[in-house]
Amino acid sequence: MDFAYDATTERLREQLLAFMDERVYPAEPVFHEQLAERENPWTSVPVVEELKTEARTRGLWNFFLPGELGAGLTNLQYAPLAEITGRSPSLAPAALNCAAPDTGNMEVLAMFGTEAQRKQWLQPLLDGEIRSAFAMTEPDVASSDARNIATSIRRDGADYVLNGRKWYISGAMNPNCRIFIVMGKTDPDAEPHRQQSMILVPRDTPGVHVKRGMQVFGYTDGDHGGHAEVIFDDARVPAENLIDAEGSGFAIAQARLGPGRIHHCMRLIGMAERAIELMCRRAVSREAFGKALAQQGVVQEWIAEARVRVEQLRLLVLKTAWLMDTQGNKGAHTEIQSIKIATPASVEWILDKAIQLHGAGGVSQDFPLAELWAAARMLRLADGPDEVHKRSLARRELKRYL
Amino acid sequence: MDFAYDATTERLREQLLAFMDERVYPAEPVFHEQLAERENPWTSVPVVEELKTEARTRGLWNFFLPGELGAGLTNLQYAPLAEITGRSPSLAPAALNCAAPDTGNMEVLAMFGTEAQRKQWLQPLLDGEIRSAFAMTEPDVASSDARNIATSIRRDGADYVLNGRKWYISGAMNPNCRIFIVMGKTDPDAEPHRQQSMILVPRDTPGVHVKRGMQVFGYTDGDHGGHAEVIFDDARVPAENLIDAEGSGFAIAQARLGPGRIHHCMRLIGMAERAIELMCRRAVSREAFGKALAQQGVVQEWIAEARVRVEQLRLLVLKTAWLMDTQGNKGAHTEIQSIKIATPASVEWILDKAIQLHGAGGVSQDFPLAELWAAARMLRLADGPDEVHKRSLARRELKRYL
Amino acid sequence: MDFAYDATTERLREQLLAFMDERVYPAEPVFHEQLAERENPWTSVPVVEELKTEARTRGLWNFFLPGELGAGLTNLQYAPLAEITGRSPSLAPAALNCAAPDTGNMEVLAMFGTEAQRKQWLQPLLDGEIRSAFAMTEPDVASSDARNIATSIRRDGADYVLNGRKWYISGAMNPNCRIFIVMGKTDPDAEPHRQQSMILVPRDTPGVHVKRGMQVFGYTDGDHGGHAEVIFDDARVPAENLIDAEGSGFAIAQARLGPGRIHHCMRLIGMAERAIELMCRRAVSREAFGKALAQQGVVQEWIAEARVRVEQLRLLVLKTAWLMDTQGNKGAHTEIQSIKIATPASVEWILDKAIQLHGAGGVSQDFPLAELWAAARMLRLADGPDEVHKRSLARRELKRYL
Amino acid sequence: MDFAYDATTERLREQLLAFMDERVYPAEPVFHEQLAERENPWTSVPVVEELKTEARTRGLWNFFLPGELGAGLTNLQYAPLAEITGRSPSLAPAALNCAAPDTGNMEVLAMFGTEAQRKQWLQPLLDGEIRSAFAMTEPDVASSDARNIATSIRRDGADYVLNGRKWYISGAMNPNCRIFIVMGKTDPDAEPHRQQSMILVPRDTPGVHVKRGMQVFGYTDGDHGGHAEVIFDDARVPAENLIDAEGSGFAIAQARLGPGRIHHCMRLIGMAERAIELMCRRAVSREAFGKALAQQGVVQEWIAEARVRVEQLRLLVLKTAWLMDTQGNKGAHTEIQSIKIATPASVEWILDKAIQLHGAGGVSQDFPLAELWAAARMLRLADGPDEVHKRSLARRELKRYL
Repeated sequence: MDFAYDATTERLREQLLAFMDERVYPAEPVFHEQLAERENPWTSVPVVEELKTEARTRGLWNFFLPGELGAGLTNLQYAPLAEITGRSPSLAPAALNCAAPDTGNMEVLAMFGTEAQRKQWLQPLLDGEIRSAFAMTEPDVASSDARNIATSIRRDGADYVLNGRKWYISGAMNPNCRIFIVMGKTDPDAEPHRQQSMILVPRDTPGVHVKRGMQVFGYTDGDHGGHAEVIFDDARVPAENLIDAEGSGFAIAQARLGPGRIHHCMRLIGMAERAIELMCRRAVSREAFGKALAQQGVVQEWIAEARVRVEQLRLLVLKTAWLMDTQGNKGAHTEIQSIKIATPASVEWILDKAIQLHGAGGVSQDFPLAELWAAARMLRLADGPDEVHKRSLARRELKRYL
Repeated sequence: MDFAYDATTERLREQLLAFMDERVYPAEPVFHEQLAERENPWTSVPVVEELKTEARTRGLWNFFLPGELGAGLTNLQYAPLAEITGRSPSLAPAALNCAAPDTGNMEVLAMFGTEAQRKQWLQPLLDGEIRSAFAMTEPDVASSDARNIATSIRRDGADYVLNGRKWYISGAMNPNCRIFIVMGKTDPDAEPHRQQSMILVPRDTPGVHVKRGMQVFGYTDGDHGGHAEVIFDDARVPAENLIDAEGSGFAIAQARLGPGRIHHCMRLIGMAERAIELMCRRAVSREAFGKALAQQGVVQEWIAEARVRVEQLRLLVLKTAWLMDTQGNKGAHTEIQSIKIATPASVEWILDKAIQLHGAGGVSQDFPLAELWAAARMLRLADGPDEVHKRSLARRELKRYL
Repeated sequence: MDFAYDATTERLREQLLAFMDERVYPAEPVFHEQLAERENPWTSVPVVEELKTEARTRGLWNFFLPGELGAGLTNLQYAPLAEITGRSPSLAPAALNCAAPDTGNMEVLAMFGTEAQRKQWLQPLLDGEIRSAFAMTEPDVASSDARNIATSIRRDGADYVLNGRKWYISGAMNPNCRIFIVMGKTDPDAEPHRQQSMILVPRDTPGVHVKRGMQVFGYTDGDHGGHAEVIFDDARVPAENLIDAEGSGFAIAQARLGPGRIHHCMRLIGMAERAIELMCRRAVSREAFGKALAQQGVVQEWIAEARVRVEQLRLLVLKTAWLMDTQGNKGAHTEIQSIKIATPASVEWILDKAIQLHGAGGVSQDFPLAELWAAARMLRLADGPDEVHKRSLARRELKRYL
Repeated sequence: MDFAYDATTERLREQLLAFMDERVYPAEPVFHEQLAERENPWTSVPVVEELKTEARTRGLWNFFLPGELGAGLTNLQYAPLAEITGRSPSLAPAALNCAAPDTGNMEVLAMFGTEAQRKQWLQPLLDGEIRSAFAMTEPDVASSDARNIATSIRRDGADYVLNGRKWYISGAMNPNCRIFIVMGKTDPDAEPHRQQSMILVPRDTPGVHVKRGMQVFGYTDGDHGGHAEVIFDDARVPAENLIDAEGSGFAIAQARLGPGRIHHCMRLIGMAERAIELMCRRAVSREAFGKALAQQGVVQEWIAEARVRVEQLRLLVLKTAWLMDTQGNKGAHTEIQSIKIATPASVEWILDKAIQLHGAGGVSQDFPLAELWAAARMLRLADGPDEVHKRSLARRELKRYL
């Protein structure tokens, strides 16, 4: 047992921290100005492209992807780097080409794509030239159980025809989001885990209607393509767009989830660290009732509790990454679920306190706290609400005593 | 001791409930359509004016204001009516001409205004023809302690000249918000409670710059005029615009706060009731894991806890109203503070659970829950953060043992 | 709606407060000395008998019992008096002959007893000469659902014969506890609500084995007769000991519960007030880090939160009492359940903070806090765990939407 | 970074787990019988001595002590073993001669004792022949700040003379507790950190009055010598009993605390694991409302939450042990404080839920839960209340921004 990062991680952390200080944090105000000025409220802005170019030049690129196609890092090596990008979550993950949902989509294509699929879609994604979306969640069913997904993918000659309604399809409002991986039912009569398939659907396919941007506590998240409601109305794609085979949709979804959750959780921890920093800076610089906030007992209580929670969370996420590296996603099942339960809830708590400490500023657009809070809150629902994961984790724990 | 509403209250409740069912709830979708279509994102929309006309015709008007100028209700009589309006907080309070901050401003003018001030500003407010704002909070000081307010109001001949920066001035982005009551310092050398004054500043005064709308978790609250940042840059108004006398600003602010908090809290309880209703409707109509959400233990726990909390809150708010009626605002001091502490926090908790039950829909614009949540969360900060009120309440409790 | 106590209540409160100050609080140290010195660890001590004599002389007697047999108070009148007795819960309720479980047992006998039963058992209980127990809970079933009770009460000629195991039978270790009201099954084949009956079983009946005292977090509660495990092994009593009729046990249990819960909750509020007082006294008299605890933010937070919670709880309990008086126990069903859920949990929280403020003293026998805490904690389980009541309350709320 | 235990740890874990299964768990009922039968309620019982003999034979002895005198384990190696002993905290730590406060006292003697002191007191402690106590806490001062300690240790010729009052001196009621390490003031005029000294005081020294056993929520903890109030009334010991030098008391106390906290926290985690096991066993075997508790949503929520919390706690404690091993106690300062804050609070929460699941049994002497709860609750106060540690931790965090 050893709690020190290895040499590769330490080296990359240093390089990444330098990049954050030199380029990312200074780009934050520029980013907000450019967002305010753009015409289409769903597009990316120039400063992000500049950061991408710079990051790639510095070798800070595709860290998320193991193997030859990516940076070759283990999950345990990537985790502390993902954490750092979470300190500036609108810029840093995109700058390093490590932003969701592209990361998960690239993993799917790397693992399950045909050579043609990889050439057409994976390569430009790896190069950061296009964006992509993952179309799973549906408004009319409890999508946390993937078996409930109702969108139909029907074989018709050399094509598949899609019909259904999806929402909260992140990134899909962005015109540069060129390709959707869509989950749907190819065989409603198969056994429950074998009814679903995934298929590649270009955004400009006739019958694909990107209808509107869904909000998250008033935020549109337009800077990274929003969260679209998408209607598939007899959308037709060639059969070779199918990923893997008919009936493998559920299995691919499972494979995609593990790393995705680790990444989200590590970035959340970075967000929490940013919140603690903002909390401390505010506390030492603001007075009320004749003394600095930093000297007030309740503020100290919040800061201590935040620190204690973050330290615990980080270790559990790192251990989960280690388990995935050493025992595979299945061997890390309980831990993946544990971090999915624990991280958004704890980080939400920390952000709430940071907001409270900032007064009205805390809920405003002048500090990143409220927007970070909304992101953390959303993650108590995304990929299934906490309650679903707790139920599943508990049933596995209880099984040992049956 | 008697827990039944009196006959007047019962009669008005019935009339108001009928108005809600017949006019307000049906107007909600119309309201959202009209909001989406308007050109200026800070103006009110026609359906609100129609509701106002109808409400006034029905005699549902100015309930908030005691005495001859208003409906002549006690706080205890008004409280259950305010609760009902909280079930549709964007429409019903405005429809009845009972929306903040106009209510507090009308109270100030009714209590402290000169005849000329009342004729010019109070009358059109009572008639629902114009809106108003209350400019107190400043970004650069802990405004929860009114004595920290730094905006200067300097006498200059027959005028006063204002300089300073305010933010979160609710309603002020609305062009129909014609008049601001501004709190500032007339005499920095007086004793701390006598340095401040309040003064009437028309929105179109030269030197008044309504700079931008502040956000609350991504919401602009543009439907009721947003929350403006306002710069006073040598803004000059005639001396007769002063309210009451120089040095009375702190006392007026105190007088204004009591009823305002009662109203907010009663509406919050209405919001909580709406949330419980939405929670129950969702729970009986949605399935997960083969049974209705209503049959799941965790959902039942939330609903029970929500009910238990709301019943307690309502009684404390009603008792506070009764104390204000029978012993004045001073006699209700502890209770006013108690409901300010308890209500937003408990209602926020209830809304969080309602959101969770609605999945992604809960954070979206398709249900009112996320927006209600943001309003409740804001009220843990507005008029001073919880912590300030707890500190003050505790010190009063402790004094009995010194 | 009126939040003032009526004249009778005010008069009795004054008399009771005087009795507390003059007799009860001074008796507390005497009580603990006498407890330490007695030989049988389950008996009452002389000072309690002296307090009873004095209380009866002062007319402070049997407040709990409505109608001619008792003091003739309504629930709403009794509630604030019960609260006061909760401030010294080991002495005051017993002194006024208002201690559980005798109160509930007297109510049962007053409502359902035959003349003979009332003469033999009710009268000495009303006179405070003997004590009694209520034997319901069983270790082997989820007793929160009374229909699960398994002890058998079998008719055999002119007798009933009892067999079964009970535990946590409060008071039963006390030799002066002369009579048990036992709940059991007379007809396992009847419909679920009609299988149970209640029967009077004298403690000295052959076949009744009072086996041992159960603990509550290390406390034996020996001062009021402990919590016994009792075995019924062919215990035989005459048929006329049956209360009411065969099959009415469930209905009697329901009738007994409502007032019992009100009383417990009111006393809990008195316990909370005592805790707040102790907290404040400690806070103003103890220093840490160079200033009084009373000046530390976290301590202020606790005190404020405690005050805010207690005010809400009290009002809900009082409203529940009012509902019982005006609409009967059925009309107060939801509220009775609400206070059962809310009160022990909130008071436990307050006691926990009071303990924390007292350091090691808080968990010791030198302050009443730890023992009060154990009592509050137990009430989250007694008469059914919180979760059972939340489930039931939620189902009733949800029914409105089905 | 590596999350696997090393080979030594794995081997010792296996041996210890076997010892637990074969000897410790079977001894639990015997232990309770022997406790009930002994005459002096403060002595140990034969079964503990038998377990000690067996453990020593198996080489499971003095794991806590690094270096040659002990088992030579690092903190990181010992931590998982201490966790296992926490599953049966009344038996296993004592069986392995790893029970507090002896462990801390042995550390002090090993680090700071003279040869004579080590021969006279350390050796029999290492051999498990005697017990010892650590006399620090005083009722009259906030002892969480060691500088407040008021007991005087005055030089008088060849002796030191002690006067003062201590309480919660764990183990001191046990007649086999032969030696006290007493903290007191030798020089009230020195600078604050140099006023205190520690001195060895045999229990049978004239002037040492072991007055009474203090309780913890009704528990006397008599099985391990209770928690004594001790009066020092001109107690005189030879000057060579002083540990280290005059003025080093504060430094010794600091050195003693780090390992002590790690051990407590690891055992708490074992207690939590035992609670989860009991919770699961109960949940699968008990029915309510027609289905097993294990199938009820609220129960699943508790179990999941418990698992998620324990996993986080364990990792933070292990990392803290690693930091102590690699960077010394100072380098682990923040983490030691973090686990002191987090562990008792989380484990208390878990135990509360386990109790709730067991109904009345949960608070009784028939399950270990209530007693474990009291131990966890006590640890939110022992060695300083949570609030003191949070304050200190926050101030260190804030310092980085000053």
